[in-house]
Amino acid sequence: MEIKVLRNVMVKNNAIGGDNRWRLKKNNVFTINMLSSPGAGKTTLLQNTIGKLQEKYRIAVIEGDLYTSKDAQALESFNIPLVQINTEGGCHLDARMISGALDSINLEDIDLLFVENVGNLVCPSGFDLGENRRILIYPLTEGDDKPTKYATMFSKVDLVIINKVDIAPYLNVSVEKAMEEVRKVNETCEIIALSATKPESLEDWFQWIEKESVSALQE
Amino acid sequence: MEIKVLRNVMVKNNAIGGDNRWRLKKNNVFTINMLSSPGAGKTTLLQNTIGKLQEKYRIAVIEGDLYTSKDAQALESFNIPLVQINTEGGCHLDARMISGALDSINLEDIDLLFVENVGNLVCPSGFDLGENRRILIYPLTEGDDKPTKYATMFSKVDLVIINKVDIAPYLNVSVEKAMEEVRKVNETCEIIALSATKPESLEDWFQWIEKESVSALQE
Repeated sequence: MEIKVLRNVMVKNNAIGGDNRWRLKKNNVFTINMLSSPGAGKTTLLQNTIGKLQEKYRIAVIEGDLYTSKDAQALESFNIPLVQINTEGGCHLDARMISGALDSINLEDIDLLFVENVGNLVCPSGFDLGENRRILIYPLTEGDDKPTKYATMFSKVDLVIINKVDIAPYLNVSVEKAMEEVRKVNETCEIIALSATKPESLEDWFQWIEKESVSALQE
Repeated sequence: MEIKVLRNVMVKNNAIGGDNRWRLKKNNVFTINMLSSPGAGKTTLLQNTIGKLQEKYRIAVIEGDLYTSKDAQALESFNIPLVQINTEGGCHLDARMISGALDSINLEDIDLLFVENVGNLVCPSGFDLGENRRILIYPLTEGDDKPTKYATMFSKVDLVIINKVDIAPYLNVSVEKAMEEVRKVNETCEIIALSATKPESLEDWFQWIEKESVSALQE
């Protein structure tokens, strides 16, 4: 059996990612690619973020899942542009999928776009979607030793959100240790500890969005 | 750029997986492929399993990680055959890696082999390593809605271990709901709820190993 692969998959992805970035920038849309393992709290964080920031920003969300539209359904009540991408078993979103999703969003009418990637701490790290910033949601329930074990992902993000810190007292883990481990593989990213279920803990995250949305659109 | 792929990767993997299975069976080794997201508790479960079963079985472990040998180090005190595979960023173990690892284990001297796969709820599901049984460690800290979202993985395992049930009271999740969700995508697998950190909760798991080790070697 012989299969000819006529293009380098990553080169093509990154070219389409570049197109996406240009298209988003032209419309002054600040785009965040949200990465994590399954069940890290991305959707919960989105719920408590959109609820708070909806008055300030016109927000849209692209949801990536292997199957189901549960995550999109969880955001339906906000009445914002929502696009569900099902990868049908695929382990990551790619730039072409995002390009297709952007076709169905009126970009002139939004300021802030969240892309919730497939829950996977390995594969999505290699794919530029055209985002301005990449963030990683890292729940302490996974243990405080993950950054060096999944170094590729941790090294390629602009912000690490250490999530579920309210559960830490019931686990044999430490927020400080988790932060130190992040620093071993990423010296420059920002690190914010919070509990996505506790709206009162999200202030630093909101400030990060405000700060980065300004600087990203000047780049 | 043109790349020729001369073989179907999966066909080749499965052929080597078949070779591994034959080689293990010839030596009466019962092999379990342990799958999960990052931080689900595979290594902790192994620690409390080896400690208990070491008197009854001669045990070996193959550890799969992108980088580091932390998981293997966590098992060093048991003084058993331990092989660390580093995938260098790769998202799953494949049959060829296992074949190489088996070369360095004296199979005549073991009864029970655990393969701890890379933490990833998507990609490892497609790769037959030559195991007798596949088990999935699914921690409640990921939420009770994951089976239908990651249906490929959940549908391809013989046993789902619902882990971290001791933390459930501090989360908005239910063991019963998690079990119902597993049944939606896998009607035949066994399901055991436990806390890998609590040795007293592991009795059903030990009985499953005993039962399956007998039946698998008669297949």
